[in-house]
Amino acid sequence: MKKIHHLHPSETRKLIRKGKWDKPTPGLAMGYAQANLVVLPSKYAFDFLLFCQRNPKPCPVLEVLEPGQYRTTFLAPDADIRTDIPLYNIYRKGKLMSVQKNIMEIWRDDFVTFLLGCSFSFEEALIRAKIPVRHLEEERNVPMYITNIPCKPSGIFRGPMVVSMRPLPADKVIHAIKVTSQYASVHGAPIHIGEPSAIGIKDLNKPDFGDPVTIKKGEIPVFWACGVTPQAIVMQAKVDLCITHAPGHMFITDLLNEELAIL
Amino acid sequence: MKKIHHLHPSETRKLIRKGKWDKPTPGLAMGYAQANLVVLPSKYAFDFLLFCQRNPKPCPVLEVLEPGQYRTTFLAPDADIRTDIPLYNIYRKGKLMSVQKNIMEIWRDDFVTFLLGCSFSFEEALIRAKIPVRHLEEERNVPMYITNIPCKPSGIFRGPMVVSMRPLPADKVIHAIKVTSQYASVHGAPIHIGEPSAIGIKDLNKPDFGDPVTIKKGEIPVFWACGVTPQAIVMQAKVDLCITHAPGHMFITDLLNEELAIL
Repeated sequence: MKKIHHLHPSETRKLIRKGKWDKPTPGLAMGYAQANLVVLPSKYAFDFLLFCQRNPKPCPVLEVLEPGQYRTTFLAPDADIRTDIPLYNIYRKGKLMSVQKNIMEIWRDDFVTFLLGCSFSFEEALIRAKIPVRHLEEERNVPMYITNIPCKPSGIFRGPMVVSMRPLPADKVIHAIKVTSQYASVHGAPIHIGEPSAIGIKDLNKPDFGDPVTIKKGEIPVFWACGVTPQAIVMQAKVDLCITHAPGHMFITDLLNEELAIL
Repeated sequence: MKKIHHLHPSETRKLIRKGKWDKPTPGLAMGYAQANLVVLPSKYAFDFLLFCQRNPKPCPVLEVLEPGQYRTTFLAPDADIRTDIPLYNIYRKGKLMSVQKNIMEIWRDDFVTFLLGCSFSFEEALIRAKIPVRHLEEERNVPMYITNIPCKPSGIFRGPMVVSMRPLPADKVIHAIKVTSQYASVHGAPIHIGEPSAIGIKDLNKPDFGDPVTIKKGEIPVFWACGVTPQAIVMQAKVDLCITHAPGHMFITDLLNEELAIL
């Protein structure tokens, strides 16, 4: 099954569509961008799109589909959003009700699909720039923390920003800011460097999501806005129904990470 | 009345609010960003916001207000969108029905206000970089052209991109691209340089909007996505009702142009 890692995104999605891959997607279709999924009934769509517009760093919109549309136009024209994600989380009133391999049976004509950028894209750029990415070195999930930075609210959507943290040697921090600044559509530049308590984080060893990673002597924690933010916000808003990808089980696009670089 | 040019944006808006200034806004509150206005009934709001998300170069969103809201949160907290623009155009079914100094009487609880970035902001940056801006030198309106570049449609909103043109000496073109690239929220980098016919423009001396300008020997026409695009698109969609600023009579924000620079 190792072979799957070398497939083109459309071939990878085909396997996922057939239910032959329900594991996390990091490492699949290397070089291609992966996206976060949020599906909401259309009555919430304007407020959520406006939430994303107001909070572009945690919620960078890559593509939004019109009500009922399950085919993407820009990210992967042959994809079907109801089947091409390995695992879906179904939430009702903010509670996880089921985890399933497709959403064919529950799909509705008023569902609006949001595909949001993911930090996997800029991590590839960091590695290319010889900047170490600790959680990848240690084969863990990136550590994520709930901050005291409020997102700008929109309608029922409100709450704190969630950040991911990557510890960096002091002499790599500026370069990392420059590299990730080029990737505005996948969280972009960090939102904070250094002292965790300045953004309401008490203990770096106790992340709210993901795993703690080693911080070596002389390293500085660098914090980026995180794609978990919109999911946390939507859960908290207790919408009737919301569908997301299961953590780590992303939508694989036909877009190269490189195409996401601005400048 | 010359004195008004030196007022702070909030003082300028106060004069406009009282009906004491109904002329164009270029030159007012120098250094501060001015914004395009589009007001639509909420039934069109999701499709139009999605149109802007899909076409960020002609439609760079600075702020969107929730239905019925006439106070901005980010651009100018003391402003009233119903009174603080010198002249409003009222369109019904795509036809200009009236031009008025405020919209108090026709304001409705389902109106959604969109404030979009304007090229005045990057022109100031060009001038600071010693790059000539011909239509300002010649005291004309910038020449604007309808291209053959289709915008990405959203719902009923579809049509070609409108561009503005500034002729530049060949040795200034690259610098102008670099400078304006930093202003993504006000149209950003050009969308085309050189041959006008490549984007469907037949005659630079016959702009579709604005005035023709002198193109000197050896100068290259440089084309930027233009804020007239969303207005043209909304007119063409023949929505029941739409309110915009009258051309050149913009909303003056408290944001410095400099604050719009990314990087």
